[in-house]
Amino acid sequence: MNFVSILMGSKSDYNTVKKAEDVLKKFGVNYELIISSAHRTPQRTKEYVLDAEKRGAKVFICAAGMAAHLAGAVSAMSVKPVIGLPLKGGAVDGLDALLATVQMPKGMPVATVALDGAINAAYLAMQLLALNDKELATKLEEDRVMQIKKVEEDSSEIEVRL
Amino acid sequence: MNFVSILMGSKSDYNTVKKAEDVLKKFGVNYELIISSAHRTPQRTKEYVLDAEKRGAKVFICAAGMAAHLAGAVSAMSVKPVIGLPLKGGAVDGLDALLATVQMPKGMPVATVALDGAINAAYLAMQLLALNDKELATKLEEDRVMQIKKVEEDSSEIEVRL
Amino acid sequence: MNFVSILMGSKSDYNTVKKAEDVLKKFGVNYELIISSAHRTPQRTKEYVLDAEKRGAKVFICAAGMAAHLAGAVSAMSVKPVIGLPLKGGAVDGLDALLATVQMPKGMPVATVALDGAINAAYLAMQLLALNDKELATKLEEDRVMQIKKVEEDSSEIEVRL
Amino acid sequence: MNFVSILMGSKSDYNTVKKAEDVLKKFGVNYELIISSAHRTPQRTKEYVLDAEKRGAKVFICAAGMAAHLAGAVSAMSVKPVIGLPLKGGAVDGLDALLATVQMPKGMPVATVALDGAINAAYLAMQLLALNDKELATKLEEDRVMQIKKVEEDSSEIEVRL
Amino acid sequence: MNFVSILMGSKSDYNTVKKAEDVLKKFGVNYELIISSAHRTPQRTKEYVLDAEKRGAKVFICAAGMAAHLAGAVSAMSVKPVIGLPLKGGAVDGLDALLATVQMPKGMPVATVALDGAINAAYLAMQLLALNDKELATKLEEDRVMQIKKVEEDSSEIEVRL
Amino acid sequence: MNFVSILMGSKSDYNTVKKAEDVLKKFGVNYELIISSAHRTPQRTKEYVLDAEKRGAKVFICAAGMAAHLAGAVSAMSVKPVIGLPLKGGAVDGLDALLATVQMPKGMPVATVALDGAINAAYLAMQLLALNDKELATKLEEDRVMQIKKVEEDSSEIEVRL
Amino acid sequence: MNFVSILMGSKSDYNTVKKAEDVLKKFGVNYELIISSAHRTPQRTKEYVLDAEKRGAKVFICAAGMAAHLAGAVSAMSVKPVIGLPLKGGAVDGLDALLATVQMPKGMPVATVALDGAINAAYLAMQLLALNDKELATKLEEDRVMQIKKVEEDSSEIEVRL
Amino acid sequence: MNFVSILMGSKSDYNTVKKAEDVLKKFGVNYELIISSAHRTPQRTKEYVLDAEKRGAKVFICAAGMAAHLAGAVSAMSVKPVIGLPLKGGAVDGLDALLATVQMPKGMPVATVALDGAINAAYLAMQLLALNDKELATKLEEDRVMQIKKVEEDSSEIEVRL
Repeated sequence: MNFVSILMGSKSDYNTVKKAEDVLKKFGVNYELIISSAHRTPQRTKEYVLDAEKRGAKVFICAAGMAAHLAGAVSAMSVKPVIGLPLKGGAVDGLDALLATVQMPKGMPVATVALDGAINAAYLAMQLLALNDKELATKLEEDRVMQIKKVEEDSSEIEVRL
Repeated sequence: MNFVSILMGSKSDYNTVKKAEDVLKKFGVNYELIISSAHRTPQRTKEYVLDAEKRGAKVFICAAGMAAHLAGAVSAMSVKPVIGLPLKGGAVDGLDALLATVQMPKGMPVATVALDGAINAAYLAMQLLALNDKELATKLEEDRVMQIKKVEEDSSEIEVRL
Repeated sequence: MNFVSILMGSKSDYNTVKKAEDVLKKFGVNYELIISSAHRTPQRTKEYVLDAEKRGAKVFICAAGMAAHLAGAVSAMSVKPVIGLPLKGGAVDGLDALLATVQMPKGMPVATVALDGAINAAYLAMQLLALNDKELATKLEEDRVMQIKKVEEDSSEIEVRL
Repeated sequence: MNFVSILMGSKSDYNTVKKAEDVLKKFGVNYELIISSAHRTPQRTKEYVLDAEKRGAKVFICAAGMAAHLAGAVSAMSVKPVIGLPLKGGAVDGLDALLATVQMPKGMPVATVALDGAINAAYLAMQLLALNDKELATKLEEDRVMQIKKVEEDSSEIEVRL
Repeated sequence: MNFVSILMGSKSDYNTVKKAEDVLKKFGVNYELIISSAHRTPQRTKEYVLDAEKRGAKVFICAAGMAAHLAGAVSAMSVKPVIGLPLKGGAVDGLDALLATVQMPKGMPVATVALDGAINAAYLAMQLLALNDKELATKLEEDRVMQIKKVEEDSSEIEVRL
Repeated sequence: MNFVSILMGSKSDYNTVKKAEDVLKKFGVNYELIISSAHRTPQRTKEYVLDAEKRGAKVFICAAGMAAHLAGAVSAMSVKPVIGLPLKGGAVDGLDALLATVQMPKGMPVATVALDGAINAAYLAMQLLALNDKELATKLEEDRVMQIKKVEEDSSEIEVRL
Repeated sequence: MNFVSILMGSKSDYNTVKKAEDVLKKFGVNYELIISSAHRTPQRTKEYVLDAEKRGAKVFICAAGMAAHLAGAVSAMSVKPVIGLPLKGGAVDGLDALLATVQMPKGMPVATVALDGAINAAYLAMQLLALNDKELATKLEEDRVMQIKKVEEDSSEIEVRL
Repeated sequence: MNFVSILMGSKSDYNTVKKAEDVLKKFGVNYELIISSAHRTPQRTKEYVLDAEKRGAKVFICAAGMAAHLAGAVSAMSVKPVIGLPLKGGAVDGLDALLATVQMPKGMPVATVALDGAINAAYLAMQLLALNDKELATKLEEDRVMQIKKVEEDSSEIEVRL
């Protein structure tokens, strides 16, 4: 069974990460979610990642703040795509987590999304799964139509036309 | 035929983008490469993206500098994964391109790699293709072994051991 | 009929954008205001811009946050002047929106105002219209006199003179 | 006679500003160009601006680096549109000039373009003149077609298609 | 009569500027305080500065936020020392005001203090006056002794000694 | 008797510094804690540091915000290791204190920890003491096991496994 | 005899500091110039500052890069005005030195000039001396006239007038 | 045998790291030096660190650029002190490496030195060893005397005294 695997560095990250979970649930995509830290539990992280990969994890979402190493650490353990979700809360309004996630060395990419961009982390994960899942691809395209309708409805409440 | 589609915003980006091309060639991965700008040729970009998607493009790599909109524009055209490659050369040592690429709104993710990180853009694209291509997955795993050997060889030239 | 056309990327931008609307109302300047996103509704944006231009839009104000592409996207659709209004809320205290708005490539300018500078977006739009509208030009000059009076009144409440 | 008025803060700015001059020449747009500093020659600046406005200046381009006050100072002297062209060379890779140009207070807008964005300063100035000059508007539209051709030609030299 | 002249760009700056006023009062130093803007009331600013200088102003404190030009503008009007007090509230947590105040061109210095550093603006002004006022110099030296006592008292409330 | 010596620049720093104190107490490590400023009480700082060193201080923790000079000043007084703890509250979301602490000149190192990273300042101090204290080293290793358990417990409350 | 005292943190700073020296020479202002570091030679710095103050130093110019503490250290030693001259060469294009110089705590001001702004450091020092030296004040006013002439001459070489 | 263990992420870091090596050699301190990457060779890094610790490594110096994870990764493997040496070359003039090194989570400190601060990394390492090595402590104190002499000599070449 294919699934998305979500890791976060500490429990306090869950408030933001939950938004990714909600998106995956809404689209009926299988996922796992655990707390595991690149620094405090590297062994746990490694064991989980290798096991999850065997059991069908196709993509990892790794959420962390400050010197956010979790995504990079998982990227070093697997050739599956790793999505980095940098979280605010450290220095320079989140720039620490963003740079620590995105500025990876050659050969070890992390697919980084916006600061606190949990929703987009989930969307990106689904886009990867959809490469091989037509039903999910169709849902993503339908979702875009819904997004358009949402913009039109929002606009109708305030728009001014001559 | 599955392939990686590379777009860059202007000809001057090619010096950096070429490194992505070289990686894909080395791994024997099919790719296309064109210049098309989000701002100067939006119609050309749209036509190319939709056509490429029909012909088998599974992932887009979009390279741009300054107010780097190309990746975001392509993300808006397709539910295929889009890799954003921000390029230096504008303001604040490249921070403009990085932020303009990664800080995407909800529902429209861009998988952003490091500033001038053309090599990682190629690796990330291959990781996505490898989700459904065991041969490529194996090559990526073998490459990691080669990377380890490279580190060991580099180290042997300078290392000091007691 | 000449008018100012205001676009914003999402409904949450309206709190700030409303200040531009209020200024235009106060000066009796015709305007339109809609929500349309560069990423979620590019087609809607394009259709609106081309139509508005035909109907008399002389200048566009485009408000967006984060990887703020709306102004750049509209600039690519029209040779009418486009005013970019970057909004806070993303990373680095708004620097993402500012850089994504102002750092446009050659040939596609965006006239960028301050972060959350909705009032100045309206003033700049009126200055453009006033190039061909003497009555409005006079109003703008009178407004400057009022601004001077306001400073003098404010000062009189706290000033200390020897 | 309508014209664009270009001011720069010091002679060393001319290397960059010249690119704006070249664009205006190419499009056959009337312009003036002088050196005048907000700090070293405020009186000269004021006299020039008021005189130029009387003689037909429709828009001012003000180029300055570091604590770039020239555009703001001119904005305070006239209700004509003022384009701010921030120049690199000070601190934080030009961020000083960008912020000092764009972050204007309420009622005194500066239409800011990219760091060292002299070409776009000229384009933006022409867009303003073109609001009331159909011939120039047509030239700007034709220029966009040329830009598209340029992208296509550039691409043809390096593009790879399957 | 020698005095310190304080200018601020808008009424909203007074909350911070008041701290400078309080320090000057506490030390019995003559001062004036007005609101005058570099952009909205340049003429008022100029008239006030020239008049104040004639009446005995020995140093100007200029408080402003965002594209903080007030200190630079006053520096251009007088060879008396000008203290720049940058205020938070704009972009990048105040970096806009700091850079716009401190990055002055050659020949036109602004003596810049910390962001929102109203108290130090007052201290610096007094240090300048004290160059020619032994009584004030003595007060400043006594104040340093008081500062030492304050640190010692504060420490005694929490310190832990083995 | 070996001990950790904690200095902070002002009383307002104590809210953050207290977290370092709590960690040292929990591990039963001797410490001293005083307020002393690099700028307001340089003599007090010097006398304390030299005295503390004689009495057994093995490492100094120096907490300060803004232009945080305390750690650097103590580093200049002693060849004992100095841990710099930069505090938020100044400009650019704490970047001022971080850079003023870490960017020390050759020969005068400061071991800098994260912004507001009082807990890690204490841990780092204990790691230094543990170089020569096996009991403390064992406690630090046991603490790591506890940290792992804490992550596992936190995870068990929210984790989702397929 | 009144004089300006210039300190710099290391010999490599002299290339920039020399420009301040040249200005003072040109205006015939007495000065001293030494190398002394806040970190490497705090005792030397203190002895020099106290001695110089007794011998007639009216203002100190302190040049330093990176975690630039020299100006702050001297400010703590004397109630004479201290001009901070931050130098590039460390991190973030000089932002480290700027913030470490300007962000001083309450009661200990540093009059900060632009990054590498040696010329303005000299001008500011002369403005302070000129408070009590009419001849120097006159020279400074004459210099402003020369600056105006220089701008006019520079302009005449490139200006375009209709 | 006690020694300092130096790790660097890639061979290109050696130009900077060599300066640390030179300092340790000059002081006659035992050291090891290898290349090992947190991302490319995590297993090699772990094996080396655990082995080195057994053989007498008392402190680790970890040099890396960009998303510099090496110091953090080693900190997670050992309770020995870890010195982080961030290197320039990535984004925002090295801010990426600095933040990725210093902003570590609770319980896992990294003692961070200046960007490219290899010399200080060596000094800090020696300060730690000197806690238990009187001879080395004496050398460090003598070195400070030499530094003072160096400043005095440098000064004598350029100083100006009245």
